[in-house]
Amino acid sequence: MSEMSAKKEVEFWFEYGSVYSYLSVMRIEFEAQRRDIKIIWKPFLLGAIFQSVGFKTSPFVEQVDKRSYVLQDMPRQCKKYGLKWSEPGTFPRSGLLPLRVALLGIDEPWIGEFSRRVMELNYVFDKDINEPEILAPILSDIGLSASKVLKQANAESTKILLRKQTEQARINRIFGAPTFLIGKEMFWGNDRLDDAFQFAFHS
Amino acid sequence: MSEMSAKKEVEFWFEYGSVYSYLSVMRIEFEAQRRDIKIIWKPFLLGAIFQSVGFKTSPFVEQVDKRSYVLQDMPRQCKKYGLKWSEPGTFPRSGLLPLRVALLGIDEPWIGEFSRRVMELNYVFDKDINEPEILAPILSDIGLSASKVLKQANAESTKILLRKQTEQARINRIFGAPTFLIGKEMFWGNDRLDDAFQFAFHS
Repeated sequence: MSEMSAKKEVEFWFEYGSVYSYLSVMRIEFEAQRRDIKIIWKPFLLGAIFQSVGFKTSPFVEQVDKRSYVLQDMPRQCKKYGLKWSEPGTFPRSGLLPLRVALLGIDEPWIGEFSRRVMELNYVFDKDINEPEILAPILSDIGLSASKVLKQANAESTKILLRKQTEQARINRIFGAPTFLIGKEMFWGNDRLDDAFQFAFHS
Repeated sequence: MSEMSAKKEVEFWFEYGSVYSYLSVMRIEFEAQRRDIKIIWKPFLLGAIFQSVGFKTSPFVEQVDKRSYVLQDMPRQCKKYGLKWSEPGTFPRSGLLPLRVALLGIDEPWIGEFSRRVMELNYVFDKDINEPEILAPILSDIGLSASKVLKQANAESTKILLRKQTEQARINRIFGAPTFLIGKEMFWGNDRLDDAFQFAFHS
């Protein structure tokens, strides 16, 4: 790519409570780097989207057979991508607090590392990622002031920002996570990550 | 593979009205041949499964954003696999009649060719695959007596067989199509065809 041309961009709509978002969060920075693509991190509340289409909760809870399948599929997928997996005691688990933290970091270099650490807490260490004392150590590890970041994450302005971002997801007709957007072109699911990047690369 | 070892088998649960089944129906015989795997064809009524989990119709109808996405995703997927695509005027379209025909052919050499022709009628030529006069020419083309086969397809015994097969799908906890089963190991969606075959190959 010449220095004159702008870097290609992919919007990455994700949720820490979304199990297939785990796979994409762990892969996306490396996949983006090798194609020189810029990721626009878009944390949003998937539960609010499910409610807006009439689900009371995740389809993985409402549909027992689908839930059972996902818990069979995930260990295989993790093995395929070289990721660890431990079935979470709570599934799906709300990702509200780390999503608010993520909104503070979408333009910061720590967003990728923070996101991977949150996902590992949930899907490898089976920790409640909504607990400030669970998140604090990883914030410190990546060089941030945990107390300062957590306070800002719970500020009214951040809560409003997450609601607005989720409303934008709905306007974009997003119905699941992870979702990749390149302009109006939508790619849904970790299974479409490569297709999305190919599309961005050639667009 | 030595002649002594039994051929590995993959159960292929599919529905002619299912759009992602189109992709798998077109690919599966070639993928199976190159790995020397035997396909067990399992036509079933997906609509009855959706109803049993509380959907009135396909999720692609109930959820407008998902429907809109699928119609954006399918042309891209078809392009990836070198398949033709024309958005059907009716979507999803019932596959009841060809499913009953398929039940007569599950152990016959024509099941693959018949299935591909039905899928092309639906997703390339936008024809109502439930109409006997639409199906008759492809039955003749593959060397069968169309009138005889269609009569047998509409026999009470065949109708009961399809209901039983669909009940078996439910017992197997199948919730979508295509679904690949190797023993109790389930792989859902055309995106998992390769994983399923890899699993069968190494099992």
